[in-house]
Amino acid sequence: MNDPQLGVPLPLTGATRLYAILGDPIAQAGSPGLFNSAFRRKKVEAVLVPFHVGPEGIATMLSAFRAGKNFDGLVVTVPHKIAIAALLDEVGPMGRRIGAVNAIRKLPDGRLIGDNFDGHGFVSGLTRKGHSLRGKRILVIGAGGAGSAVAHAVVDEMPMAFGIFDTDRSRLEALAADLAPFAKAIDVHVAEADADGYDVVVNCTSVGMRESDPLPLRLDCLKPSALVVDIILHPRTTPLLREAALRGCATHEGIHMLEGQVEEICRFFGLPEDADARSAS
Amino acid sequence: MNDPQLGVPLPLTGATRLYAILGDPIAQAGSPGLFNSAFRRKKVEAVLVPFHVGPEGIATMLSAFRAGKNFDGLVVTVPHKIAIAALLDEVGPMGRRIGAVNAIRKLPDGRLIGDNFDGHGFVSGLTRKGHSLRGKRILVIGAGGAGSAVAHAVVDEMPMAFGIFDTDRSRLEALAADLAPFAKAIDVHVAEADADGYDVVVNCTSVGMRESDPLPLRLDCLKPSALVVDIILHPRTTPLLREAALRGCATHEGIHMLEGQVEEICRFFGLPEDADARSAS
Repeated sequence: MNDPQLGVPLPLTGATRLYAILGDPIAQAGSPGLFNSAFRRKKVEAVLVPFHVGPEGIATMLSAFRAGKNFDGLVVTVPHKIAIAALLDEVGPMGRRIGAVNAIRKLPDGRLIGDNFDGHGFVSGLTRKGHSLRGKRILVIGAGGAGSAVAHAVVDEMPMAFGIFDTDRSRLEALAADLAPFAKAIDVHVAEADADGYDVVVNCTSVGMRESDPLPLRLDCLKPSALVVDIILHPRTTPLLREAALRGCATHEGIHMLEGQVEEICRFFGLPEDADARSAS
Repeated sequence: MNDPQLGVPLPLTGATRLYAILGDPIAQAGSPGLFNSAFRRKKVEAVLVPFHVGPEGIATMLSAFRAGKNFDGLVVTVPHKIAIAALLDEVGPMGRRIGAVNAIRKLPDGRLIGDNFDGHGFVSGLTRKGHSLRGKRILVIGAGGAGSAVAHAVVDEMPMAFGIFDTDRSRLEALAADLAPFAKAIDVHVAEADADGYDVVVNCTSVGMRESDPLPLRLDCLKPSALVVDIILHPRTTPLLREAALRGCATHEGIHMLEGQVEEICRFFGLPEDADARSAS
């Protein structure tokens, strides 16, 4: 991401197509920078701007999105991912599975379709870095919004075993039950916060955003061959990733999930692939 | 206007403030380029994007503008300038005089106030090029939306005499009547399409957009000391301006009115003056 023009859109004209990210708060969102860089790489004459809107304004924003003849797509972030799904004409398969959408596209007939690319972005980010989940033993820590999205995408990647953990036992068991219909031959189980025996460990909690945070799981028995993943964006290198690196493990930072989401959402929006996909990494 | 970064906004982030121009069609609008260049010069972390919306979507767009916590201002172009005025909480003095607004600002208390800066932009563009209307004999050709806006601003500049002409006699007489309360000691009169005796001649019709168009007024008796002004943007040099230059007259192109409007509207939006005002010219 050593892009000297990060976030600088193409020159804006009256013909520029419009995308927006809806959220509250929005000032911290990294998506405008990443999407506008992607549009520039793809030579798409479009811009993505932040729409700062509270829960009371979501329906109004969707009406404006429908009315705007040059509005092509929306990205949705907290706290709107769940509520906005009910206002759409159609929700795609992953959005229905996790009950939340993070991207909305306007179809040529004007209908609005949403879907969720958090989990696909997570897998895409791993794939771009050469990591596969197939046949592996995976542990996900955290069964909240991000953890659920990651978990549903992980079970689709045909791991051998998949453990999930959350300090909130009822949320944990609810996610395990939600995953069951998609588990097929995979051993999906409620796990402990312990890396012992896993090939890939993923932190989907906010534990690690502060330097004083404890580790989100025990690493005493972490295998040196394991891949340790964090989805936290700031700091880029969390205490978990630092500790894993000290133990000789491969690590994978949160930014790769966000970059993967941008690519998956651009594909959903019908935009061309990057001319040089490697320039994005 | 030899700006290599014309229209390139500052890098967009989640904290970028949002402005938009409403119009239908919108692809031809030059405002996004000019406003984003102005924001960059002023170091304002904001972007102006095109909102392509038909008459049926105007009320929805205003609702979205109210709901958007980072939406600060709207620019309005054809065909919405008249209809949108009725949907605002307040209309400023020039907007009320001509019954149309071309800019809307959200006040800190959430109320929407609009006003019209077409005419002020026209005068501002002249002033920036060193031209004054005070004490002069002015002729404006065209009593439509642009002509009305220009005429109302011109009478405020205290010319000695002010003639207006339009091929539509009823529209012409209506404008003359509208101007009367503001005319004070100025000789405001219905004129012929003839430059004879005027110090400043202004074309506010679309005659001259096509190379095959006739001249919008007779120039046989045009004074060599006269200033000839066209508000047409494309072509930049109209047949009228070319003919006037051949006769040794000073000329003034339409782009200066648009640049003047951008400055006047930025001031209305509460944005800082350019650090180097001359860089805009």
